[in-house]
Amino acid sequence: MQFLSYTRLGIPGFGVRVENGIVDLTGKIRPGVTNLRQAIHDNCLEEAADFAAGRYAEFTEADVTLLPVIPDPGKILCVGLNYETHRAETKRPDAKYPTIFTRFADTQVAHRQPLLKPRVSDSLDFEAELAVVIGRGGRYIAQSAAMDHVAGYACYNDATVRDWQRHTFQFTPGKNFPSTGAFGPQLVTPDEVGDYMKLRILGRLNGEVMQEATLADLIFPIATLISYCSQFTPLQPGDVILTGTPGGVGDRREPPLYMKAGDIFEVEIPGVGRLTNPIVVEP
Amino acid sequence: MQFLSYTRLGIPGFGVRVENGIVDLTGKIRPGVTNLRQAIHDNCLEEAADFAAGRYAEFTEADVTLLPVIPDPGKILCVGLNYETHRAETKRPDAKYPTIFTRFADTQVAHRQPLLKPRVSDSLDFEAELAVVIGRGGRYIAQSAAMDHVAGYACYNDATVRDWQRHTFQFTPGKNFPSTGAFGPQLVTPDEVGDYMKLRILGRLNGEVMQEATLADLIFPIATLISYCSQFTPLQPGDVILTGTPGGVGDRREPPLYMKAGDIFEVEIPGVGRLTNPIVVEP
Repeated sequence: MQFLSYTRLGIPGFGVRVENGIVDLTGKIRPGVTNLRQAIHDNCLEEAADFAAGRYAEFTEADVTLLPVIPDPGKILCVGLNYETHRAETKRPDAKYPTIFTRFADTQVAHRQPLLKPRVSDSLDFEAELAVVIGRGGRYIAQSAAMDHVAGYACYNDATVRDWQRHTFQFTPGKNFPSTGAFGPQLVTPDEVGDYMKLRILGRLNGEVMQEATLADLIFPIATLISYCSQFTPLQPGDVILTGTPGGVGDRREPPLYMKAGDIFEVEIPGVGRLTNPIVVEP
Repeated sequence: MQFLSYTRLGIPGFGVRVENGIVDLTGKIRPGVTNLRQAIHDNCLEEAADFAAGRYAEFTEADVTLLPVIPDPGKILCVGLNYETHRAETKRPDAKYPTIFTRFADTQVAHRQPLLKPRVSDSLDFEAELAVVIGRGGRYIAQSAAMDHVAGYACYNDATVRDWQRHTFQFTPGKNFPSTGAFGPQLVTPDEVGDYMKLRILGRLNGEVMQEATLADLIFPIATLISYCSQFTPLQPGDVILTGTPGGVGDRREPPLYMKAGDIFEVEIPGVGRLTNPIVVEP
């Protein structure tokens, strides 16, 4: 199943893809369940499938304005240096543990919304990633049980302001400019994705492939990331873990290649989605 | 003025200190303003002073259970290495910019609540800090105007799980264990504090002074921190900036001295407050 968050006629809500369009679920499964995060929290995704089964599409994606898959996650935990190709290009040493930093929810944009190049920097870079959305929350989650805590997957562009990322050794500033975290188009449930390690991930700048890998290349696999993060912080339904980006980022090219106004960046993960965002200079 | 967040008879709210006790403000200034963050957002603190003027205390601190000063800040921005004594003991190089990391709101505890030593670590360390609470929000705030964006000050213990902080070069795991961020007892407004650079800060473990400095020692002063952070993220009313800790942390002592069950740590900033927390092992 594929779930979308959107506003329609100005009202925020969510729905599920069916043949030829979308069946709206906003307040339809249970009266209080008016967004995807709440639906995950209330464990409603299977009921949503039952609700949508046999119904006709009420409208299409063209009739809505998409929102980030989860517009307001309680936590966005980002993993750095989780593909060998990217670790090597950054010249960082091997690590025994995942490298975790954070992104605020107010940095997010949806599929097709612009990523903003800040006024104060010319080094906005792309990072194609697979996002994992937490279903059932928990603390001290065992690796062996971790995949049961996944609600689904989506594409993410963890776009990074490189000079601000390097002001000090902490990544926070470079990862938290407004409109730099693209999340979409949809959440795809694990039953539809199957073995995530077979997924391919591609990052394209203006149609040209810049990043390419398979999810089997993750240094720390998803079960390890969920288990590790749940040791230090309780995970909640709708929390997001960004699994890291493969080699090929613009910053490590010769000469460096940053995103500029008019560019289009696409994160494609066949079986999960294709996330497209134009680049616009911050007004 | 001094504002407190608390639950009373099970209901969360906030109030202001008057002689001999507290005047409750929950829903009293305006019907929808039922917590301190909202009062700051709606710019109600001066009205609160008018409301409380001449009223008698309705109850005392003993009649309430304190909450963290702001129980649910949208953002907690933490500054590392902002006193020369601490930078030197960590052997980190000078930096041209503030070192910024983040803490989730669900890590916070109030005055007198226990700080939890996690099951998975024996290296819970103290960090006495001055917290700045943002009043008026903003983006691209000029240093010259930054102090107009301060709602007030409070004591904070940015307690840190040192081994997890050092799993990689990103601080996130060591700074985000539940019940490791103590914030209290109260918010003190700038008119009452006066020149913050004259404040002294003390950290005491079981009554013995471990950390001592004056706020004039900050490498990056508060106006610089507000201005810098507002470049990369919009600040909102009730957001919190932790200004860093002085030298003397347990981790850099010979031998290292970590907090253990039964210990008491106090952050005292005369004129702002005295924050006391016992240490308890996570159940």
